[in-house]
Amino acid sequence: MTNLLQIGLIGAGRIGQVHASTIAYRISNAQLAAVADPIPSAAQAVAAKFRVPTIAANYQAIMDDPQIDAILICTPTDTHAEIMKAAARAGKHIFCEKPVALNLPATDDALQVVDRAGVKFQIGFNRRFDANYARVRRAIVNGEIGTPQILHIISRDPAPPPIAYVKTSGGIFLDMTIHDWDMARFLSGSEIDEVYVQGGVMVDPAIGEAGDIDTHVTLLRFANGIIGTIDNSRQAVYGYDQRVEVLGSKGAIQTENNYPNSSVVSGADAVRRDLPLNFFMERYMDAYAAEIAAFVDAILNDKPTLVNGHDGRMALLVGLAAQKSYREGRPVKVAELQ
Amino acid sequence: MTNLLQIGLIGAGRIGQVHASTIAYRISNAQLAAVADPIPSAAQAVAAKFRVPTIAANYQAIMDDPQIDAILICTPTDTHAEIMKAAARAGKHIFCEKPVALNLPATDDALQVVDRAGVKFQIGFNRRFDANYARVRRAIVNGEIGTPQILHIISRDPAPPPIAYVKTSGGIFLDMTIHDWDMARFLSGSEIDEVYVQGGVMVDPAIGEAGDIDTHVTLLRFANGIIGTIDNSRQAVYGYDQRVEVLGSKGAIQTENNYPNSSVVSGADAVRRDLPLNFFMERYMDAYAAEIAAFVDAILNDKPTLVNGHDGRMALLVGLAAQKSYREGRPVKVAELQ
Amino acid sequence: MTNLLQIGLIGAGRIGQVHASTIAYRISNAQLAAVADPIPSAAQAVAAKFRVPTIAANYQAIMDDPQIDAILICTPTDTHAEIMKAAARAGKHIFCEKPVALNLPATDDALQVVDRAGVKFQIGFNRRFDANYARVRRAIVNGEIGTPQILHIISRDPAPPPIAYVKTSGGIFLDMTIHDWDMARFLSGSEIDEVYVQGGVMVDPAIGEAGDIDTHVTLLRFANGIIGTIDNSRQAVYGYDQRVEVLGSKGAIQTENNYPNSSVVSGADAVRRDLPLNFFMERYMDAYAAEIAAFVDAILNDKPTLVNGHDGRMALLVGLAAQKSYREGRPVKVAELQ
Amino acid sequence: MTNLLQIGLIGAGRIGQVHASTIAYRISNAQLAAVADPIPSAAQAVAAKFRVPTIAANYQAIMDDPQIDAILICTPTDTHAEIMKAAARAGKHIFCEKPVALNLPATDDALQVVDRAGVKFQIGFNRRFDANYARVRRAIVNGEIGTPQILHIISRDPAPPPIAYVKTSGGIFLDMTIHDWDMARFLSGSEIDEVYVQGGVMVDPAIGEAGDIDTHVTLLRFANGIIGTIDNSRQAVYGYDQRVEVLGSKGAIQTENNYPNSSVVSGADAVRRDLPLNFFMERYMDAYAAEIAAFVDAILNDKPTLVNGHDGRMALLVGLAAQKSYREGRPVKVAELQ
Repeated sequence: MTNLLQIGLIGAGRIGQVHASTIAYRISNAQLAAVADPIPSAAQAVAAKFRVPTIAANYQAIMDDPQIDAILICTPTDTHAEIMKAAARAGKHIFCEKPVALNLPATDDALQVVDRAGVKFQIGFNRRFDANYARVRRAIVNGEIGTPQILHIISRDPAPPPIAYVKTSGGIFLDMTIHDWDMARFLSGSEIDEVYVQGGVMVDPAIGEAGDIDTHVTLLRFANGIIGTIDNSRQAVYGYDQRVEVLGSKGAIQTENNYPNSSVVSGADAVRRDLPLNFFMERYMDAYAAEIAAFVDAILNDKPTLVNGHDGRMALLVGLAAQKSYREGRPVKVAELQ
Repeated sequence: MTNLLQIGLIGAGRIGQVHASTIAYRISNAQLAAVADPIPSAAQAVAAKFRVPTIAANYQAIMDDPQIDAILICTPTDTHAEIMKAAARAGKHIFCEKPVALNLPATDDALQVVDRAGVKFQIGFNRRFDANYARVRRAIVNGEIGTPQILHIISRDPAPPPIAYVKTSGGIFLDMTIHDWDMARFLSGSEIDEVYVQGGVMVDPAIGEAGDIDTHVTLLRFANGIIGTIDNSRQAVYGYDQRVEVLGSKGAIQTENNYPNSSVVSGADAVRRDLPLNFFMERYMDAYAAEIAAFVDAILNDKPTLVNGHDGRMALLVGLAAQKSYREGRPVKVAELQ
Repeated sequence: MTNLLQIGLIGAGRIGQVHASTIAYRISNAQLAAVADPIPSAAQAVAAKFRVPTIAANYQAIMDDPQIDAILICTPTDTHAEIMKAAARAGKHIFCEKPVALNLPATDDALQVVDRAGVKFQIGFNRRFDANYARVRRAIVNGEIGTPQILHIISRDPAPPPIAYVKTSGGIFLDMTIHDWDMARFLSGSEIDEVYVQGGVMVDPAIGEAGDIDTHVTLLRFANGIIGTIDNSRQAVYGYDQRVEVLGSKGAIQTENNYPNSSVVSGADAVRRDLPLNFFMERYMDAYAAEIAAFVDAILNDKPTLVNGHDGRMALLVGLAAQKSYREGRPVKVAELQ
Repeated sequence: MTNLLQIGLIGAGRIGQVHASTIAYRISNAQLAAVADPIPSAAQAVAAKFRVPTIAANYQAIMDDPQIDAILICTPTDTHAEIMKAAARAGKHIFCEKPVALNLPATDDALQVVDRAGVKFQIGFNRRFDANYARVRRAIVNGEIGTPQILHIISRDPAPPPIAYVKTSGGIFLDMTIHDWDMARFLSGSEIDEVYVQGGVMVDPAIGEAGDIDTHVTLLRFANGIIGTIDNSRQAVYGYDQRVEVLGSKGAIQTENNYPNSSVVSGADAVRRDLPLNFFMERYMDAYAAEIAAFVDAILNDKPTLVNGHDGRMALLVGLAAQKSYREGRPVKVAELQ
């Protein structure tokens, strides 16, 4: 492998384009060698826009290309496990969007294959690479706030996804809160021991008809004794609300939303500012770039990836426990799901 | 009754002095006519400092004084019910510090006697009169944030009380969270239906030895469907942390702590400001004055009091449910306690 | 003199009522013994509202009352000097609203009489007692920001005063900026050496027709080398804008406006909060109380007053220099006015 | 010209590398075709890092390359005029770092040659492209704050440049304030009519020995009647301080500094946050990218550049007026310099 990592992109949809843009415009030690997508026009568009030399017929063609060092899996969730295994067999390093799968057996099976192959694996929990959350984690690790005691995560989308998506996404606990389960683990440095969900359909009855809820607050107990909450809504009309705070024995740390500018207008009726950055494509653009940079760095310099298969597995497990808690109306130990 | 309400103060301790100061220095249509306290020097000190003409031998002497229109009960909790009943029998209007009692039968008994007597009754949930929380309630009532969906209350003390206090206070759910149960009901405009507590001893083992906990987060389900949390700690080293936020269908509202000044110092290592107002005597001084002004106004102008016996009873009930939830490690319906 | 200072109030207008309220409701070691006002109904109203026992026929009657220790001069500016001299002759301590007079000879004459009489004298620069500015001064004195280099004062009223007031007030530099000249001296700990004014009529042409301007920014050079600006407008539509900031060799300090509450509403179009406290009666209420408390303390404990005749004189002098700068369109040394 | 603009970079120093990075990683419709620098290793390093195919022997070789559409001049100031003229003669579009020259004749001469050649010309006032200032300008243009009345610019560097730089830079008014003269013109939409400088050596005596000052506040009068100030210091120990505010007849707008993260730590002694982004490479990275994107867009789509030769000339002129004001200790009309 040279110092220029050759990457194959599998899946040319929205998040695939984000990563393609990162590699083209932000990462100097990697380049896109090939792109594959079942929709040829999607692959062509990405290839043209980001100057990718090869459009692969399918993902297997990427696996078969000896020049390719690593792949990014940006396809629908139900294909992740299969592609992971193919990549592992082909000896490619793997970056996979979250989650590995919507159930535990498929997840464990894919992770085992990857593990045995000895390739690098990183799961797409991009928020760990956000400057705000990284700062919070640093405060905890550095002892700036002493022993953490209470942790709150607020994570609200500006508007609900299409109902078609809701029907196949695995539901709010696996498609949306999945990031927050991971954030809770990342910030606390601890596994989650128990969850208790209060939630319901408050945004759109169609979400309820599709078998999901759109709003919940979940109370967490961590293995190390920390208590936490996750607050999720599919709709905050003022935009993407992404904040955390942690109370510790020596202080507290709290993040604010990110804004497109810092200007404040004082008018005759109110003091006001523009709404926060509206959605993940704006809010987490730097975090997306940083996670790919970290993945490339882990491969080129043979370091462990910063978010691994265990992290992907545990977030799924807690999501399944939350589903169970909501359905059964009781606190559920994560260990019940193992 | 003239336009100058004559008030008898029963209990010349810390909170009694706060109210004495309010009446002396902030309320133009009321005056302290008498003060009683089992410790004569305490009564004398208050009388001297706030120019109270009469030091009563005991609270009954205040009840017997026909010139006195209303009383303030600022004595230890275990005497509240008895004094309330004596005042009701004497036809005095009653302002009573929270809670009425630490158990339901005594509370119900006292409230019934007061009710039958037809005197005004106000319970000391002063935070309802704070400018921040009043603004949040107004936003909800005005529809500024649409239908409320999620509510968070953070309420942390700067330092734990003496262990002696912990042993007799009724515990964190009744002496500290009592304000937050009421705040939750006040802001939501709804009764609390279910509580689930996660908590423990994180601040001082002596609190655990005294049979209490010092930290908890409680997940609430309200009768009207709102979901909420209350976050309590006996110790936030940065001071008195008192914030709420509410998400609604049309927006969100959030309060910040109050500070002694707005100055921000940018130095070579950080941008910093002074700590928040340290404790309730500073943070809620205006709210204490406003609750007494409202009580006086309710009497002089024959209006309903803004916080009544039902409010006192319900906060107790939820506190008892929280105790049960913590002890039994399960969600508890408030109705179980009725 | 007992420990209860007896005060005579001269002038029962707006600011007189502010001080009467302070003494009645906030100061425990002083009381109003008498009030005088040329308009009998004004004096009667204050006496009734604040329980003042004596309505004096005129200010001389207050001077003649041997029970009165100190007086507050809250009359129109053109009477200050005369009343100050009468009080000095009567041996009364004097608190006088700013300015002493609109010209230097009358100011110097009155201050000399006061000085020779040996009575305490305090001028009403209440803003020195505001928590924000006091904190800034403390940061400078404590060395928190090192050697001060640049100082900015922003001081804007919510709306212009009546034209009738503008005609007799001495103009913006003497009736409004007078507070800022003093603030500049207070914060910097230095005399002002030179002023250069840029200003004009931007708010209301009627102010220009009355011979005044309504907007200016003045560049200051202090004797100790600090550079500063004062920004004044008769109209900030968003309310009373009162801020300062200071850059020093080791850091900077900056104040924000004060708000009626800390609530922030995030809606579908903006994140907004309520306007700042609207005017000096709300914004500086605590500072008014603190300046009177300090005056009473200076007398009862025989300390120097914290704002004295020299402070009153120098603010006038700089105001006159600013007038000259504006009229002549050039930088003016304050020494030119001496 | 294809849709992929071919750019020649002249000058491979710090700012040249910033622009090279922008073109390589942020701009999809332009690419670097050649780089020239008198120091061969500098040109080689840029070529290697940003994959530039040609290292030109000198800038004239770039002018002679028919494939190159446009050039970026990132060389020392005293070469700008000469290179501009060479580029104009060669028919290349020109982006030139500020200022064109340190004197008016050279500036006018170069701008005339460019003008006659009919090539596009953009001067590097990158701050116009910053999200905060763009928002302020938009508020003014949209009428959000009514008619602008007062404008303040604060622009302080974290630390002074090397003394060697100070000696040749043209001094604070031409190397540092040059951005602020332009910002003042940009925000106000007006020419500056008069300047009056108060300043001195407060940071480092060596700067004074080199014939410059390090701190000044300049009072501005604009042709349209607005009054403004510019506050410059070579050293704000807390970092790069870059803020503006504008008061208008219908409101005010104010920007804050940009921070690396939004985390706030509340500890036992203060509430604090990390320092602002430290210097222009971090603070204005997006603005640098946006100015190049705008330059490319102006060429490819034949639009006027957003910052032109007149803007470069006027900023110089005001800088020269400020020099004169400081030297002569009096307000100076910009017209005096014409």
